[in-house]
Amino acid sequence: MKYTDATIDQVNAGMQEAHIAFLSYKNFSGTKKAGFLRAIADEIEALGVELVTTAMRETNLPEARIINERGRTTGHCRMFADLVEDGSWVEARIDTAIPDRVPAPKPDIRKMLVPIGPVVVFGAANFPLAYSTAGGDTISALAAGCTVIVKAHPAHAETSTLIAGAINKAIEKTGMPQGVFQHIHGASFEVGQALVKHPFTKAVGFTGSLAGGKALFDLANQRPEPIPVFAEMSSINPVILLPETLSRDAEKTATSLAGSIALGVGQFCTNPGLIIAVEGEGLDRFRKALSAEIQKANSGTMLHLGIADNYAKKLANTLAQKGVKVEGQSSSEANASQGRPHVASVSAEEFMKNPALAEEVFGPFSLIVRCRTNDELLSVVNRSHGQLTSTIIADEAELTKYASLINMLVEKAGRIVVNGVPTGVEVCASMQHGGPYPATTDSRFSAVGTDAIKRFARPVAFQNFPDAVLPYELQALNPLKIWRLRDNEWGRI
Amino acid sequence: MKYTDATIDQVNAGMQEAHIAFLSYKNFSGTKKAGFLRAIADEIEALGVELVTTAMRETNLPEARIINERGRTTGHCRMFADLVEDGSWVEARIDTAIPDRVPAPKPDIRKMLVPIGPVVVFGAANFPLAYSTAGGDTISALAAGCTVIVKAHPAHAETSTLIAGAINKAIEKTGMPQGVFQHIHGASFEVGQALVKHPFTKAVGFTGSLAGGKALFDLANQRPEPIPVFAEMSSINPVILLPETLSRDAEKTATSLAGSIALGVGQFCTNPGLIIAVEGEGLDRFRKALSAEIQKANSGTMLHLGIADNYAKKLANTLAQKGVKVEGQSSSEANASQGRPHVASVSAEEFMKNPALAEEVFGPFSLIVRCRTNDELLSVVNRSHGQLTSTIIADEAELTKYASLINMLVEKAGRIVVNGVPTGVEVCASMQHGGPYPATTDSRFSAVGTDAIKRFARPVAFQNFPDAVLPYELQALNPLKIWRLRDNEWGRI
Repeated sequence: MKYTDATIDQVNAGMQEAHIAFLSYKNFSGTKKAGFLRAIADEIEALGVELVTTAMRETNLPEARIINERGRTTGHCRMFADLVEDGSWVEARIDTAIPDRVPAPKPDIRKMLVPIGPVVVFGAANFPLAYSTAGGDTISALAAGCTVIVKAHPAHAETSTLIAGAINKAIEKTGMPQGVFQHIHGASFEVGQALVKHPFTKAVGFTGSLAGGKALFDLANQRPEPIPVFAEMSSINPVILLPETLSRDAEKTATSLAGSIALGVGQFCTNPGLIIAVEGEGLDRFRKALSAEIQKANSGTMLHLGIADNYAKKLANTLAQKGVKVEGQSSSEANASQGRPHVASVSAEEFMKNPALAEEVFGPFSLIVRCRTNDELLSVVNRSHGQLTSTIIADEAELTKYASLINMLVEKAGRIVVNGVPTGVEVCASMQHGGPYPATTDSRFSAVGTDAIKRFARPVAFQNFPDAVLPYELQALNPLKIWRLRDNEWGRI
Repeated sequence: MKYTDATIDQVNAGMQEAHIAFLSYKNFSGTKKAGFLRAIADEIEALGVELVTTAMRETNLPEARIINERGRTTGHCRMFADLVEDGSWVEARIDTAIPDRVPAPKPDIRKMLVPIGPVVVFGAANFPLAYSTAGGDTISALAAGCTVIVKAHPAHAETSTLIAGAINKAIEKTGMPQGVFQHIHGASFEVGQALVKHPFTKAVGFTGSLAGGKALFDLANQRPEPIPVFAEMSSINPVILLPETLSRDAEKTATSLAGSIALGVGQFCTNPGLIIAVEGEGLDRFRKALSAEIQKANSGTMLHLGIADNYAKKLANTLAQKGVKVEGQSSSEANASQGRPHVASVSAEEFMKNPALAEEVFGPFSLIVRCRTNDELLSVVNRSHGQLTSTIIADEAELTKYASLINMLVEKAGRIVVNGVPTGVEVCASMQHGGPYPATTDSRFSAVGTDAIKRFARPVAFQNFPDAVLPYELQALNPLKIWRLRDNEWGRI
């Protein structure tokens, strides 16, 4: 091991530092925080080729993917910089006083979001840049005004350390308080546990397995003061093929889905792990075409041996279940560190009887569920767990006919995609990356896009404050010119 | 007992009905929901004097208070009606497609809040109208598009049944689906437990004790699918008297606080249970004046015998703690069903050593914490638990001097009041009624005001949908003319 785990004393000292830094950093202006976030982006870019080669070596991901992910990471730093520089994200609401109201005077009340406190972030194995050290959790928390302690993911600890160095340079260059960001190593569960249980920790961001996320969620709820855990965990992202469109577009749909299944050796939380359709000539053609496409897809080296091993085991277990039939597999054999793309199918009847078939197989695998009727298809959807995404392949006429299906999917997923693939998560204001349990521990928040900042904030109302003592966001003249709801009217007023 | 507890079979049948009703009600337009909410207000008013006399008999609250609370209840029905009729509360965010973006096209994504599902509401003992059957939890959940099952509070089951009748009339008159609202009785913990554990339940609203709220919170988190519990539980609402202002306004402050302590026999979650000040001539005069005011305050009949008994026990326990000195008590003696106003004091040193002194004494009681220095005052505040409110009595000059105190209070409370009393919770957009644990189980949400609706909603993104298949809120022409964030610009666009 190149890095040693933090001791409990180091965790305690780090949380103390995060707490003290928070008490000043939380009041920094949006402009100042924006400067910091932009400096982080600049310093990440300044790491140059060393970052790319290190990440490639540690994760087995190809250069193009790492460069793309770096762009996404610096992109969200700058997106959140813009957001906090504008400042309207604090959702200011102002009700001015009515002193002569009968029977009782109305007081002046003004409310805004404030940062929640020090945040602990557990980086994701599958996004060494965009969801790790300077990932969406860290950057949205820093944007909100929280201080952050990142526990480096042991699978890419060196990449994580490089990024931490870039953030530390940004801290120095922009005069941020010591302790606004800290980076520690901890391959053992004890370090994570100590971080989550520390009284100064006020929220947790996590991306990983259901078992890992649920353990942190339980730990956080059992604290003397429970705190929110935003864990993104497990999703099989069902794709529903409606019959008429399937019959017309079977081959095109198969090509597009095969690409999504095999993309990045299937190591995406939005990987389409389940395909649901009604039996018939369309589905037969689709199965044949998908099988052919999957045969052409290459086996690929996975993030680390543990993930490859887990994929092989979960895949073998799924294929061994009653009624499961292999539809196709990559013609390139896989070694112990690789994932070999596979597609299988099972009848809806067997699928609904066997909960093991609804479990995530993290990797380039998808299971086709063959339904006898439309009603059976609706039953399969209705019994499915919470998901990050659901996808429907259908034209407008067929979507209109299946309004009840869309109605149902709204209850099951955070994002519904029509005629596309679930992989590829746009970073923007309208993105919802989250979903009902077990996709995440809190379906009310998004881990991607500008709204991710809301996870790390809480509202506080100020009643009857002299104007000069109020935060700038709430002062009478609106010095920051942010959007506010003032006496029930919206405006930069 | 006039009412019998629901059986587990009845709970199951009720949740099934709530689920089925939800699948249609969730899609009702804002206009239709507004009509329903206004009809509820009308039908509550139509109950006339019977409602007032029943509530008075069951709760021992005076007529003026019940009439006032009825006004607040019909008021929030109409406030949420206006909110959903306008429709902008869904926080629509739209990012339009950029098909020719390089390297990858940008898809069309549109996001809005949708209702979370059937909600279980436990009414509050101390607000038989405004926080019970048609209380803030029920009405904000119905406004969001959720169906609701209310478990009547056994202490005012008849009042609850009258209100349920009014809601049922409104359901009939406005053509709402059967099951949109249900009302059951359950004095035992088993009924509440079955409701919270039912798989169709998607959120819980509760107002009551810390023990009760925490038990529901734990139950909800231990479900196979954890769900949010919005429990408003325990708050002692510290009032901080800053020295210069205290020295000037000791008597005026005492009069105002005495009124707030004794109001409604102290049965408010925002009752000022703790007063913190630095020792000196100002505090001496304040103690004397507060003691005189409390002597004049009357003992009053409490909501029910259990609450009166609990008050007597908790008060006796507090007064028996080391270093606690009675400052004054009401000159009118109390019988077993009454609460007798009391004020006591203790040194900051003893207070900080003894956690029992920071526990809520629900009733007309307040404890003065005497600090030797400003630093000691800050230490007392710094160690305090999460609160619904904190209050500072100080003029602008002194507030400016104590910026670090305000900085600290922001971490401790949902609402900070200057030169006022914490009782009296305005129902408006800027209200924050919530706070860090143990004040509530989720400091990120408010139980009062328009934002209370957000507790019962979650965001869903629609990607690449044909316009006609989108909810009206997200369609291109903005048929509802709601506020939307469209390509990062705000407007009714």
